[in-house]
Amino acid sequence: VGAPVESLDYEVIENYAYREQQAQKGKIWFTYTIMVKWLFALLIGIGTGLAAVFINLAVENFSGWKYTATFSIIQHTYFAGYLVYVLINLALVFSSVFIVTHFAPAAAGSGIPEIKGYLNGVDTHGILLFRTLVGKIFGSIGSVGGGLALGKEGPLVHTGACIASLLGQGGSTKYHLNSKWLHMFESDRDRRDLVTCGCAAGVAAAFRAPVGGVLFALEEVTSWWRSHLMWRVFFTSAVVAVVVRSAMSWCKSGKCGHFGSGGFIIWDISDGQEDYSFQELLPMAIIGVIGGLLGALFNQLTLYITKWRRSYLHKKGSRVKIFEACLISVITSTISFGLPLLRKCSPCPDSEANGIDCPRPPGMDGNFVNFFCSKDKEYNDLATIFFNTQDDAIRNLFSAKTFHEYSAQSLLTFLVMFYTLAVVTFGTAVPAGQFVPGIMIGSTYGRLVGMFVVKFYKRLNVEEGTYALLGAASFLGGSMRMTVSLCVIMVEITNNLKLLPLIMLVLLVSKAVGDFFNEGLYEVQARLRGIPLLDSRPKQFMRNMTAKEACKSQQVVCFPRVVRVGELVSALRNNQHNGFPVVDQGQNGETVVIGLVLRSHLIVLLQSKVDFQSSPFPCGPRGVLNSHKLSDFVKPASSKGKSIEDIQLSEDDLQLYLDLAPFLNPSPYVVPEDMSLAKVYNLFRQLGLRHIFVVPRPSRVLGMITRKDLLLEE
Amino acid sequence: VGAPVESLDYEVIENYAYREQQAQKGKIWFTYTIMVKWLFALLIGIGTGLAAVFINLAVENFSGWKYTATFSIIQHTYFAGYLVYVLINLALVFSSVFIVTHFAPAAAGSGIPEIKGYLNGVDTHGILLFRTLVGKIFGSIGSVGGGLALGKEGPLVHTGACIASLLGQGGSTKYHLNSKWLHMFESDRDRRDLVTCGCAAGVAAAFRAPVGGVLFALEEVTSWWRSHLMWRVFFTSAVVAVVVRSAMSWCKSGKCGHFGSGGFIIWDISDGQEDYSFQELLPMAIIGVIGGLLGALFNQLTLYITKWRRSYLHKKGSRVKIFEACLISVITSTISFGLPLLRKCSPCPDSEANGIDCPRPPGMDGNFVNFFCSKDKEYNDLATIFFNTQDDAIRNLFSAKTFHEYSAQSLLTFLVMFYTLAVVTFGTAVPAGQFVPGIMIGSTYGRLVGMFVVKFYKRLNVEEGTYALLGAASFLGGSMRMTVSLCVIMVEITNNLKLLPLIMLVLLVSKAVGDFFNEGLYEVQARLRGIPLLDSRPKQFMRNMTAKEACKSQQVVCFPRVVRVGELVSALRNNQHNGFPVVDQGQNGETVVIGLVLRSHLIVLLQSKVDFQSSPFPCGPRGVLNSHKLSDFVKPASSKGKSIEDIQLSEDDLQLYLDLAPFLNPSPYVVPEDMSLAKVYNLFRQLGLRHIFVVPRPSRVLGMITRKDLLLEE
Ligand SMILES: Nc1ncnc2c1ncn2[C@@H]1O[C@H](COP(=O)(O)OP(=O)(O)OP(=O)(O)O)[C@@H](O)[C@H]1O
Ligand SMILES: Nc1ncnc2c1ncn2[C@@H]1O[C@H](COP(=O)(O)OP(=O)(O)OP(=O)(O)O)[C@@H](O)[C@H]1O
Ligand SMILES: [Mg+2]
Ligand SMILES: [Mg+2]
Repeated sequence: VGAPVESLDYEVIENYAYREQQAQKGKIWFTYTIMVKWLFALLIGIGTGLAAVFINLAVENFSGWKYTATFSIIQHTYFAGYLVYVLINLALVFSSVFIVTHFAPAAAGSGIPEIKGYLNGVDTHGILLFRTLVGKIFGSIGSVGGGLALGKEGPLVHTGACIASLLGQGGSTKYHLNSKWLHMFESDRDRRDLVTCGCAAGVAAAFRAPVGGVLFALEEVTSWWRSHLMWRVFFTSAVVAVVVRSAMSWCKSGKCGHFGSGGFIIWDISDGQEDYSFQELLPMAIIGVIGGLLGALFNQLTLYITKWRRSYLHKKGSRVKIFEACLISVITSTISFGLPLLRKCSPCPDSEANGIDCPRPPGMDGNFVNFFCSKDKEYNDLATIFFNTQDDAIRNLFSAKTFHEYSAQSLLTFLVMFYTLAVVTFGTAVPAGQFVPGIMIGSTYGRLVGMFVVKFYKRLNVEEGTYALLGAASFLGGSMRMTVSLCVIMVEITNNLKLLPLIMLVLLVSKAVGDFFNEGLYEVQARLRGIPLLDSRPKQFMRNMTAKEACKSQQVVCFPRVVRVGELVSALRNNQHNGFPVVDQGQNGETVVIGLVLRSHLIVLLQSKVDFQSSPFPCGPRGVLNSHKLSDFVKPASSKGKSIEDIQLSEDDLQLYLDLAPFLNPSPYVVPEDMSLAKVYNLFRQLGLRHIFVVPRPSRVLGMITRKDLLLEE
Repeated sequence: VGAPVESLDYEVIENYAYREQQAQKGKIWFTYTIMVKWLFALLIGIGTGLAAVFINLAVENFSGWKYTATFSIIQHTYFAGYLVYVLINLALVFSSVFIVTHFAPAAAGSGIPEIKGYLNGVDTHGILLFRTLVGKIFGSIGSVGGGLALGKEGPLVHTGACIASLLGQGGSTKYHLNSKWLHMFESDRDRRDLVTCGCAAGVAAAFRAPVGGVLFALEEVTSWWRSHLMWRVFFTSAVVAVVVRSAMSWCKSGKCGHFGSGGFIIWDISDGQEDYSFQELLPMAIIGVIGGLLGALFNQLTLYITKWRRSYLHKKGSRVKIFEACLISVITSTISFGLPLLRKCSPCPDSEANGIDCPRPPGMDGNFVNFFCSKDKEYNDLATIFFNTQDDAIRNLFSAKTFHEYSAQSLLTFLVMFYTLAVVTFGTAVPAGQFVPGIMIGSTYGRLVGMFVVKFYKRLNVEEGTYALLGAASFLGGSMRMTVSLCVIMVEITNNLKLLPLIMLVLLVSKAVGDFFNEGLYEVQARLRGIPLLDSRPKQFMRNMTAKEACKSQQVVCFPRVVRVGELVSALRNNQHNGFPVVDQGQNGETVVIGLVLRSHLIVLLQSKVDFQSSPFPCGPRGVLNSHKLSDFVKPASSKGKSIEDIQLSEDDLQLYLDLAPFLNPSPYVVPEDMSLAKVYNLFRQLGLRHIFVVPRPSRVLGMITRKDLLLEE
């Protein structure tokens, strides 16, 4: 089940090629590396910012045209308007699902579980390819522009990560766009740093929230985090913010079509509620509880539906996927067009009171949509949130000074319908984020609670929009279980620092309630896709287990220092392990473990054949010095390297020998057999390892290392 | 040189007492622990918030009275005004230095290097005691209220850390304020988590910057950071923000004397510059360079002056310290009163243009101070920044729409004088922060550059206040070398997100320039105080060294499993090591390392004597089960436990034996002898260890641990 995954390895493999490379490095080389790193941070920022601008521009323009066309046609006939609306949506969704199924299968979904996995140490095949990037960008234009119940924020994070990873390889190898000159980030560790930057850049671009982006990356990458990296990540996010801001101010002059104020999430609610009283804490806590419940339910439902899709539907090939997405598109269009038709229009509020046009002028974005209303001074409250772009709908739900704009009935209808649509849409083969749908759902019930608060606490200065915002935070908290970064993102996208304590309260409640039922959305989905995430803390029972117990009755596959090629090949064929201890005879005849050799390195050696020797005795270290560079051992970024089945060796070759000593990692981390598994877990997780040797207790201590020994100056 | 320091140990010591305690724990216990942790986070937030409010209230009122009194007296005679001004300042500074020297010596200075050390893994004696807390609070009221060139922000961070640590012990042991009931955070690791919360709370309180607080704690504690902790830390900061905000809105009604708008740093520059053009990037980069140069110079000068103070002045006892502080106070008062007298007053600008009163009404805070001016509609630009509280001075320097308020000559005079004062004041025996002085210095030259920009780029929409802000950021960046957290703090204290990219640019430049010359202020000071900080990355040359080489020709002091008490005592007397390997005979006569025993645990055992036995053979594990609880081994928070010299043993006792097996840590981390020191460094730093054993290569591998083995479900 699930895509092929493989662990990443953040350890430094100190084999001879590495040591040789280290020895060649001078001062200039370091300066150069640092400069390239910062240059890359800059480029990632610019790239992600431009991608975000492009996606937003396209989406805003497509939906702008769509609504303008529909609104102008329904002046004459509603049925033709409906048809046009459905067809435009269908065309957009079809293009998206077609791109994904035929060109970039890894671009389906939000991509955040996979990126989270990558940063946790597991590589899913294909998520960081060039075609995935292209598929993600164009696919999400289609799916979001086509009005499905999904957002573009998750895909933007994935886009940022792809851009970063591609830059790290110096371009795409397959499409011959790469440059040797920039080809210097070769270890998993360097790549992970870049992907971290890209991930933060994606969040920063999606929400125009540079600090939130850094914290998002940080919350997902809590192991192995250095302040140097943090500064670079922050720089990238700031670059994104600058790019996005410049593009928007350039667009202000009207050069970008329908891309006006909208597009980039910023729901400014700075003219909202200034103060809150103690009585309001109860309804806010209730919002938190609702968020926790609905969020956990969302995770559970999407889990079932994804399972069902995987095991029945998507097995039947891409035609079914395309048909499914198109069907959902038609249903979504029909509901969002049809339901508002059934709703009675309400008279406009006194326009003096709030300064918002009602109904909104034709061809504009805004609040108070006049849709299927008999009189002129009327608006349709359901259409205002349902028959609108999601960004506008959220702005309308968050809007301050618009008391009683929505009836409870409309909000409830919308909540039920949209929640169902969001669940059903989840898992179709299009790029899809869950942030914006989550905000829609949350702000609907938040506004509902706000209406009751306005009714019951009449004398307080309550704003329904503030409650909508808190509802949005609560649903996201209840579903995704993010904490600090979500808080900061909410503050940044609403531009209102005063609500921070309230958002935090709501998040505390909703996360606690949600955690009671199940794991977060991304964790659930990662598990389903077979991405084994390691939590930041060991489980409780691991404290009472030893490392030896964790290995159970494992029969360790080892190699001697000089191994027959034939044996090597058959051992590699007979098991799936990716690392093997290498054992040698010491002077006194006792055995000594001399290191760890990786399957991927062995395959490189078997393929090149230059190191085969006829003698079964160790060669001197000199013999191999010129045959391999460090870059020969670099894993291709697509993660699927050669496998042992691809290697063809003649009978003669199989009789030769191979001395593994120069190619192994001479000092993998070891733990004594009775160390508790909790401590082993910390070691593994904190250092981002792939293999740990469990060894017998040592016979003596050759030295002690304390802080004093590590304070050496050169 | 320096206070006695001792390493902290974040490792779990899995001795029998620990295992027994683990076995007793049930589900309820875990729920209880989690609740207590959150309760503590809440309490730390409230405590730190209240302490901050108290300090601010006191400082604002003292300086309010001081300036009111002085201004009303100088209506009659300037000399009497001068005397009153000097005497009030002197009294305040004297009280501060008296408290510090006679009651809480660890409260001197900013405390940030010590806290940074604590979070890095080194405990300085006495920094987290109750008396230090009290001394810090009252001392900083005196020193800041007394008008010295120092701030209250560093001390607030220290205050937060003290509150957290005291709460963790359930109160102060010495003053019998502790409660057994809350006494549950007994390992260094739990304490460090609390101190992290406290540190963030302190920053949040000092700058009203909750996000900045979290990031500050994060930048200083990059090793060992979990997202769970982050959420708690953030919660604490938010609580602080709520407490401070409530207190301020309570004070708005005038119940708090002179504590009006001032006190809590928020220099709102939201009506400043909206846009910037490319030509401005050059002067901004110049500000960055100046900041780097002046900051690095500041670090160097303060290093020399602190060295000199330590080796000559402060050796002579506390009288000299008191005299020194008083002298500096008199000099500071004289300069800040006298220099503005020499300055010619300028005519007020057209009051319509900017809406700020000029000159400010008597008895008020504000801009355009009328001091020693002959005419009514005049102000003294030097007095506006020099003869004022620091908060007001900064607000005046940051002020927008006040072109040409200051003459270049005044700014230069102030810059030189204040820089000198800040350097000279640094290291006196009073609580002292460097943030506010840094902001003063930086904003002065920033404004100076801004003046030139206004002059040369006439047509641009330039605000001098924005340049002052950038100058402040550049000086702090050049001196303290903080990055992300400084950026966020600057944004939060000026409430202006739009300047983020500019602040970042300036910080990038100033940090790079500063790093070229020396280390950051806190690192330099920590080194001087003998606090050995471990950087987050190993040094380059460590990649070419092995662990064995780092231990050189160390003769490891080991103990056998059953050791004669006499031998134990003499071994402990003869060396200073804090951890000892314990070696036993295996079944076949070969030796086996069975664990690590800590000096502090041995001393507890020697003192209690209950485990002494007359037979030289191992006792069964049953024999000891009831003699010790885990809490017996807990280190007292004051870090200075009993030493071996305090132990009195009779001749008979010395002949007995002690079986160490139940008390040792059976599985310390080990590294093979030829692992590169860089890898050992990472292990040590990332896991927060205190001891690592260097052992021979293992003879065989009993098992492999990979990700799959750690994904166990119960
Ligand atoms: N050389 C080996 N000999 C015996 N057992 C091994 C060996 N290497 C790994 N194992 C065991 O086999 C199981 C699967 O190992 P594998 O090497 O596939 O690791 P993994 O967790 O799947 O990660 P990845 O394959 O992505 O590195 C684990 O339980 C591991 O302990
Ligand atoms: N049991 C021991 N036998 C021999 N040498 C040791 C032993 N323990 C430590 N050392 C060495 O002695 C030196 C000082 O050790 P010490 O135990 O004082 O550690 P430290 O770095 O000062 O930290 P702290 O004392 O705060 O734990 C170090 O070089 C260390 O390697
Ligand atoms: Mg595997
Ligand atoms: Mg020592």
